[in-house]
Amino acid sequence: MTAPLIPIRSRDNAFVKDLRRLAQDSTAYRKQGRLWLEGDHLCRAALERGQRPAIAVFAESFWPAAQHEYGQAAIKNIVIDDALWADVSGLESPARMGFVLELPPAQAVQPGLATVVLDRLQDAGNVGSILRSASAFGFGQIAALKGTAALWSAKVLRAGMGAHFALRLVEGLEPADIDTLELPLLATSSHQGSYLHQAALPWPCGWIMGHEGQGVSAALQERATQHIRIVQPGGEESLNVGAAAAICLHASAAARH
Amino acid sequence: MTAPLIPIRSRDNAFVKDLRRLAQDSTAYRKQGRLWLEGDHLCRAALERGQRPAIAVFAESFWPAAQHEYGQAAIKNIVIDDALWADVSGLESPARMGFVLELPPAQAVQPGLATVVLDRLQDAGNVGSILRSASAFGFGQIAALKGTAALWSAKVLRAGMGAHFALRLVEGLEPADIDTLELPLLATSSHQGSYLHQAALPWPCGWIMGHEGQGVSAALQERATQHIRIVQPGGEESLNVGAAAAICLHASAAARH
Repeated sequence: MTAPLIPIRSRDNAFVKDLRRLAQDSTAYRKQGRLWLEGDHLCRAALERGQRPAIAVFAESFWPAAQHEYGQAAIKNIVIDDALWADVSGLESPARMGFVLELPPAQAVQPGLATVVLDRLQDAGNVGSILRSASAFGFGQIAALKGTAALWSAKVLRAGMGAHFALRLVEGLEPADIDTLELPLLATSSHQGSYLHQAALPWPCGWIMGHEGQGVSAALQERATQHIRIVQPGGEESLNVGAAAAICLHASAAARH
Repeated sequence: MTAPLIPIRSRDNAFVKDLRRLAQDSTAYRKQGRLWLEGDHLCRAALERGQRPAIAVFAESFWPAAQHEYGQAAIKNIVIDDALWADVSGLESPARMGFVLELPPAQAVQPGLATVVLDRLQDAGNVGSILRSASAFGFGQIAALKGTAALWSAKVLRAGMGAHFALRLVEGLEPADIDTLELPLLATSSHQGSYLHQAALPWPCGWIMGHEGQGVSAALQERATQHIRIVQPGGEESLNVGAAAAICLHASAAARH
């Protein structure tokens, strides 16, 4: 592998056009069969979890410094002009490197594996943050219902900070598919059930996290074996779903510790 | 108060220019002395907390439907063309209404009030989510060190979902200012101290949440009276700071319940 000497400078370059779509269009990975990881922290997390990128992409100004650490990480290196990078990047403060990875093959639900069920979550930052918490707290699987933000989009990958590569990720599910988890299902509620800090929590289990505005759907509420309340002395109407998920998943981990 | 009949259609309108800055530039509120709340859910949360907006702004297509519910909410109503709205909005999926509020007067640290200390947090979404958790779990004050994302920016307001109006918010602090809280200070740590779910937590207290990449600064680490670990059986390198904050603040609330 030799370092590429000629940075790409054309907006019309086919690779650059694909990359821009991958970075900015949340479902482009399905068409291209590839993922985009932007930023050295995230790229490092992917390497630490054994990923071997197809392509490493560097901003021209960063390539000299990055070459030593990342020059051998990918099968191929590509350098692009800094101005072009800013155009490609989906970030407000563009990072100066990223990896292109092959999209892993789609997976089916694995019964009995501790799972977080995502019920039509909209926000990529919330979804990524929940993946990160799931992985930290010993959950092995994410089961995302149809309507949830695309799990492998650049934004979710970024918020997940490598957790994607430690989890079994299943997308596009219907409520009935959740039965195949064969797990006790827990749903948070604002008005019924035990308080989380006093509840006996089963393990393994499936925690259901619901849509940011509408909460958990009726079809999944019915499937829940336990409803759990989070104590809120401040009386806010609701927590951010990423915050609620962190609290619940931590409680499951603490109960086993 | 009469409904305005003529929607603004010019990009060069002075109000529209100010609004665009307020929506998109995170520190514009300091120059303008005004805040921008976008989206009906957030606007409703502000009204529920007793806010009286100076101006309510509506997209032309939404005004007929919104008039009944929000026509009397603000001192003044302004309607703008839908295309212009998309240009003004800081959101990917622009909402169709927003409020302009006067910036509340700056406040000083109140000693003894349960507080979350933000040590140079960068991400507006994280900061807003922490404000929301703080309010939900009975904390009354946010003490933000210099270098933290601007608390009253449109993005932090949006992620805070009304929590701003239930908290005492202090910005621009130096580490030494934190001594004036006169509280036991708790900092999370990856390697020392008791596990959160086993720790005796003081009340009132100050929880210190650190920079997304660098964590809590040495100057604040020294001031911490207790270091606390979060159990992480999955062994991820770190949690999202908004997730970690939610877990810690909930633990304080649960300990008092």
